[in-house]
Amino acid sequence: MRIDIITVLPELLTSPFEASILKRAIEKGLVEVHMHNLRDFSTNSYNQIDDYQFGGGAGMVMMIEPIDKCISKLKEARHYDEIIYMTPDGETLTQGIANQVSLQENIIILCGHYKGVDQRVRDQFITREISIGDFVLSGGELGAAVLCDAVIRLIPGVLGNETSALTDSFQDGLLAPPIYTRPADYKGWKVPEILLSGHTAKIETWREEEALKHTEDRRPDLLED
Amino acid sequence: MRIDIITVLPELLTSPFEASILKRAIEKGLVEVHMHNLRDFSTNSYNQIDDYQFGGGAGMVMMIEPIDKCISKLKEARHYDEIIYMTPDGETLTQGIANQVSLQENIIILCGHYKGVDQRVRDQFITREISIGDFVLSGGELGAAVLCDAVIRLIPGVLGNETSALTDSFQDGLLAPPIYTRPADYKGWKVPEILLSGHTAKIETWREEEALKHTEDRRPDLLED
Repeated sequence: MRIDIITVLPELLTSPFEASILKRAIEKGLVEVHMHNLRDFSTNSYNQIDDYQFGGGAGMVMMIEPIDKCISKLKEARHYDEIIYMTPDGETLTQGIANQVSLQENIIILCGHYKGVDQRVRDQFITREISIGDFVLSGGELGAAVLCDAVIRLIPGVLGNETSALTDSFQDGLLAPPIYTRPADYKGWKVPEILLSGHTAKIETWREEEALKHTEDRRPDLLED
Repeated sequence: MRIDIITVLPELLTSPFEASILKRAIEKGLVEVHMHNLRDFSTNSYNQIDDYQFGGGAGMVMMIEPIDKCISKLKEARHYDEIIYMTPDGETLTQGIANQVSLQENIIILCGHYKGVDQRVRDQFITREISIGDFVLSGGELGAAVLCDAVIRLIPGVLGNETSALTDSFQDGLLAPPIYTRPADYKGWKVPEILLSGHTAKIETWREEEALKHTEDRRPDLLED
């Protein structure tokens, strides 16, 4: 899989891709991530990529021309399955969307910044708009990092132990059951006895019950679907 | 505001705090962000902070003792309003929650990693569990960065232009209307004429109508509340 990220702040995105699972996935050659600094596609000597809103109002708007130039250059080199714009009014990211995106071969992620991009960018170039949630961030960069993390860990071979991803919350529509590790007794706070029993089948049943109880308690909406 | 982040991967979190608005907020002294490497609180010479699950199963669990030691040390130095655990089964982050958290003075954010933390950590120390959405990430670090970004930009003085945050999506329960900047005509794709008219009142009405239409179209659920 190849991911091209277009941003005005590539420096914000360095560390998430240089640590942990994303780093290993890149090193293993399972994914390529390329950052493109939008300022390199500016059409004037000030490296300008934003301008005031037509009609007045606070906040700058990202101009269409540098974005068009960057996307066009990428599209000349290869076919892209999706050109995704990270924006708070896009469809809300879910594990299902992460699963879908993880099956793509080449994607572009455009990070909004300031007030966002000129609407004509969205109308003309973008194939999918994704939000990571109902809150506002300084820019789409963290959203892009979140999307990449959610997607890349689903690519076969990225996680050391495939079973681990399958028992995560949401993969089976339930929240995960409680988990415990040593010591069995810490300051008098004890691990449930069933987990120390060695009865694999009983432990499995207990975990299923706890997952269901936990989901009913916290997220009954997940059980309605 | 002071934010203490407890993590096994402090290096993943460096760049988001060294760029853009978060960097400026820290430089202006409006917020302090301190990273704590959980491995520094390990109780053995291998810097161990995780162990196998009781009852078997894939994925490691973060141990209670190093977390207890780290949180206890922080609590000795000052009072904390919230000790937040980033976890996919927590309450889903919204702009309302970001507003609430932005009013706190001192908070701790504990980032889950691997399969998550020992349940006793959640039962004994955590006052609030927050998820950034219904998807699974490699760890709570990106979630913590997202929460910090959403919260810090709401602190008075952080954004250059306060009006800008107030007209963002979600602050008034509506998605933002479309925005445009120069050129007015790009490859035949034109900016709506109303925005070039100079009629401030008419533009305001158009924007309200577009925001409502856009919200009805994409997120009718926001209008139900």
